[in-house]
Amino acid sequence: MVSGNPQSSFVAIQDLLMNTFELWLQLDFMAGLTVGMTVVPQALAYAVVAGLPMEYGLYSSFMGCFIYCLLGTSKDITLGPTAIMSLLVSSYAFHEPALAVLLAFLSGCIQLAMGLLHLGFILDFISYPVIKGFTSAAAVIIGFNQVKTLLGLQNIPKQFILQVYYTFCRITETRAGDAILGVFCVMVLLVLQQMKKGIPRTHPLEPLPVRISRYIIWTTATARNALVVLFAGLAAYSFQVTGSQPFSLTGTIPQGLPLFQSPPFSIITSNQTIGFKEMVQAIGPGLVVVPLMGLLETVAIAKAFASQNKYQIDPNQELLAMGFTNLLGSFVSSYPVTGSFGRTAVNAQTGVCTPAGGLITGALVLLSLAYLTSLFYYIPKTALAAVIICAVAPMFDARIFRTLWQVKRLDLVPLCVTFFVCFWEVQYGIIAGVIVSGILLLYPLARPRIEVVRDNAIIIKPENGLQFPATDFLRDIVHKQALSEPQQRKVILDCSHISRIDYTVVLGLSELLQEFHHRELHLIFIGLQAHVLEVLLAADLNGFRNFSTLKDAKRSLGDLHVAFEDMMDDIQTTAGMIQ
Amino acid sequence: MVSGNPQSSFVAIQDLLMNTFELWLQLDFMAGLTVGMTVVPQALAYAVVAGLPMEYGLYSSFMGCFIYCLLGTSKDITLGPTAIMSLLVSSYAFHEPALAVLLAFLSGCIQLAMGLLHLGFILDFISYPVIKGFTSAAAVIIGFNQVKTLLGLQNIPKQFILQVYYTFCRITETRAGDAILGVFCVMVLLVLQQMKKGIPRTHPLEPLPVRISRYIIWTTATARNALVVLFAGLAAYSFQVTGSQPFSLTGTIPQGLPLFQSPPFSIITSNQTIGFKEMVQAIGPGLVVVPLMGLLETVAIAKAFASQNKYQIDPNQELLAMGFTNLLGSFVSSYPVTGSFGRTAVNAQTGVCTPAGGLITGALVLLSLAYLTSLFYYIPKTALAAVIICAVAPMFDARIFRTLWQVKRLDLVPLCVTFFVCFWEVQYGIIAGVIVSGILLLYPLARPRIEVVRDNAIIIKPENGLQFPATDFLRDIVHKQALSEPQQRKVILDCSHISRIDYTVVLGLSELLQEFHHRELHLIFIGLQAHVLEVLLAADLNGFRNFSTLKDAKRSLGDLHVAFEDMMDDIQTTAGMIQ
Repeated sequence: MVSGNPQSSFVAIQDLLMNTFELWLQLDFMAGLTVGMTVVPQALAYAVVAGLPMEYGLYSSFMGCFIYCLLGTSKDITLGPTAIMSLLVSSYAFHEPALAVLLAFLSGCIQLAMGLLHLGFILDFISYPVIKGFTSAAAVIIGFNQVKTLLGLQNIPKQFILQVYYTFCRITETRAGDAILGVFCVMVLLVLQQMKKGIPRTHPLEPLPVRISRYIIWTTATARNALVVLFAGLAAYSFQVTGSQPFSLTGTIPQGLPLFQSPPFSIITSNQTIGFKEMVQAIGPGLVVVPLMGLLETVAIAKAFASQNKYQIDPNQELLAMGFTNLLGSFVSSYPVTGSFGRTAVNAQTGVCTPAGGLITGALVLLSLAYLTSLFYYIPKTALAAVIICAVAPMFDARIFRTLWQVKRLDLVPLCVTFFVCFWEVQYGIIAGVIVSGILLLYPLARPRIEVVRDNAIIIKPENGLQFPATDFLRDIVHKQALSEPQQRKVILDCSHISRIDYTVVLGLSELLQEFHHRELHLIFIGLQAHVLEVLLAADLNGFRNFSTLKDAKRSLGDLHVAFEDMMDDIQTTAGMIQ
Repeated sequence: MVSGNPQSSFVAIQDLLMNTFELWLQLDFMAGLTVGMTVVPQALAYAVVAGLPMEYGLYSSFMGCFIYCLLGTSKDITLGPTAIMSLLVSSYAFHEPALAVLLAFLSGCIQLAMGLLHLGFILDFISYPVIKGFTSAAAVIIGFNQVKTLLGLQNIPKQFILQVYYTFCRITETRAGDAILGVFCVMVLLVLQQMKKGIPRTHPLEPLPVRISRYIIWTTATARNALVVLFAGLAAYSFQVTGSQPFSLTGTIPQGLPLFQSPPFSIITSNQTIGFKEMVQAIGPGLVVVPLMGLLETVAIAKAFASQNKYQIDPNQELLAMGFTNLLGSFVSSYPVTGSFGRTAVNAQTGVCTPAGGLITGALVLLSLAYLTSLFYYIPKTALAAVIICAVAPMFDARIFRTLWQVKRLDLVPLCVTFFVCFWEVQYGIIAGVIVSGILLLYPLARPRIEVVRDNAIIIKPENGLQFPATDFLRDIVHKQALSEPQQRKVILDCSHISRIDYTVVLGLSELLQEFHHRELHLIFIGLQAHVLEVLLAADLNGFRNFSTLKDAKRSLGDLHVAFEDMMDDIQTTAGMIQ
């Protein structure tokens, strides 16, 4: 592209400058900074979702950046407080920071143990409809939870259904200042979000001013959370200076970095001491739900970005990184964290090259804690509510209902169960969804397809293996097909699809053989795979006979048709030899 | 056989008499009476196992007889208090009869609901090793629990491990009278039990006196529980008359039939009122374990005897009979009951013809309650302990450990987990066993066998279906086999063994297709079953191509070898036509 023409030489220099500029912009430094500007307002807001003082959001935001930088396997992932995790923590911590921090410590231990024991496969049992049902319900719950803050309503209960009811009942108590600022913030965020989607990729041949203005728009749109919160804060400060204050403000946030201290194993209040055991009992099922959902979110995000950006991740290593983050985080008063989809996307889009971008993000959070908390006093609560609403809105996926209806209707059952039960209690929603999809998974094991061919003998062929829950079902079929009729017939059990067998099945077969023996009938096995045959032979079944093929079995039963076929085969073979 | 010979005519008359005698003996009346003589002492003893006053054993013993007579489908089954049910009740009722009766009511409701909703298949998920582990552990726990009574020891804790420890610690405090009588009773019971096994079947040609004496021995052996308790009671009474009493006696049992009243939905004590909610919370997991184990025991027994005596039962009808028994039983202060293996065996051996035998058993229990409770005062506790020990001893099956070791070692895991955890807490044993066997069942769903053939293309063939837990596993295999290598190759996914597909799998396949598309490679499906194909077509996957056979797929991929084969086929066909 470089040539003697001065015009084109100018273009070349301009290109070089721009490329260097872009390179510099695309450094991990820039990515870290951008993510940091997203995480600080989100951290404050998510702490509210978790029902904790706002500083806990910041305490939870930096450890993940540093640890993931050392242990992570994906360049894009950023660990920290997320909307869903905060919602879960709010169910288990009862507004008590000590419980939330202990939960982080215990979740970290459990995640590390799962990583070391290679138990990551447990996540495979959470199906996509359950995840979708949960995230969609969580988006509705978290989003609606912020409506009361957006409108400045007071004393709204926590339970979702009551919340909806009372929010509409008290809608007349809306505070004008909060509502106007809140709706305005939401609109600005939505516009910036849409603008960002609309920006075409920069092209090196475009003139510099176009590219720079485009870059400014992109930066504004990406750092929109920080900007909206900043301007709302400035507005609130201006009002404060003039003496009137139409907004509910965040208020005092303790300044300074959190102490590095052991997580709280007991709570000492003025009245009483709550011991470790009582704390664990209070958290209860959270010890299963929080670590698992944390893992699920991280692994899902890591896989999504690895696939998009074409690199491989090691789910087990992710598990370890996650576990260490929660474990060490609990020493700096962090509540449980996980991979954040939104911030990971920001990170990836900013063109992060290594996980080192996290260092910048972490440093920015620490700086905020050390120097900026006094400024946070002026942040209107309604602006943070707007940030949350816009962050969770894309999590609600209405299309999945239609897609499942078109593709696989049965999967609507776990989806709907999860979605609707979540509104009662988030944890029960996930558990109910997993149980329902587990039942859909197990039912075919108890009632496998069994093909029955009625010939001279009856040929019974389980299509999909035979494990203990199917024992009685198989026996019932054999009874119904062969033994309950006046003209009882011999049965050939075709085991060619059976690749596993357990003792309960062996016992069922042994009892069947006994019944056939009583009636002086034959039950013959064919097509047994080697290790299944081994088990049956070890069980030393009375009257057990097996053949490798159906023809052999029929021949042994003296089937005339087979004898005829045999003869024909012989003739053909002979004919072939003659030819 | 009738002839002119006076000798043989005498034989004929003797035969006729004997046959009539035997017929009369084999009437349901006789069976009902025999079972009744077993149930009364067992009911008293099992109430002690359940931690309830003794009269509750009798209250629980008659309703099942009447209801089963109307609703049952097996002639042999007798419902009533059993050792295992009593052990379970003792875990949930905390020595409080009101809780036990409420548990019966709720269990009845749950069993009825399960019957009406056809949920009986849930029982299929309790595998034989779990059942064996549980019953063997229960035999040890119940049996050892009686050792302290047999020895007359006081203040032994309830928890099994502590019980063993303290029983041995305090063995020096053994009361001589109790111990001597107890050991003697056990020995008598064991001898009678062995004698019964040794009696050969009567033969019509044997002389009458032989047959009568044999019958007396058989009756004595069958009614051994009642006889032992009777003689021990007589001995205690004799001592009482002489003024000394070396035995611990049963003491006063309230006389009279139980009131027909609604089951207790609250407990009012002098200090406080315990409401329905607290009672249900106290019972807790008992609401799952008791109804399920009750059903399991009944259905298992019914199936065993139906198979032995060659008739069919309807498990769902059994469920209803069982549910009604517990439901209505709770109105006469019964605790949860189930089918009793021991008494069902007695019933079957006495030659019962219809479930009507139960009417006699029930009447006998009612008569005992109305008139005999004052006599029960003198029954030595140690005699009842002996009855229990001999009843549960056959439940312990040491051979199963060896059998499983020989036949299928993996099944030792649920067996041992159930067996050993039961000693900590019975309910946890069953739950742990079910979970472990569930994991053994689910693991292959997450990690199915997948056959990989490396040809020009890579042929990947899941052997046992493909359901959502296997999605990531399949993707990993495809990655490892095809995409991670420098020379990436086309993949043929052979779906001929896949009979079900869910949306999570569809999504996984869609992402795989996308990755292949990115790399400009082919992923081709073959052998799709009709309804699986339907789902995949509905999902409208981008780049989805399928063929019915491997050959078609290879042909489309331009495989030269296949082209050659095609040519050969053509030549052969032509050759065939020429012939």
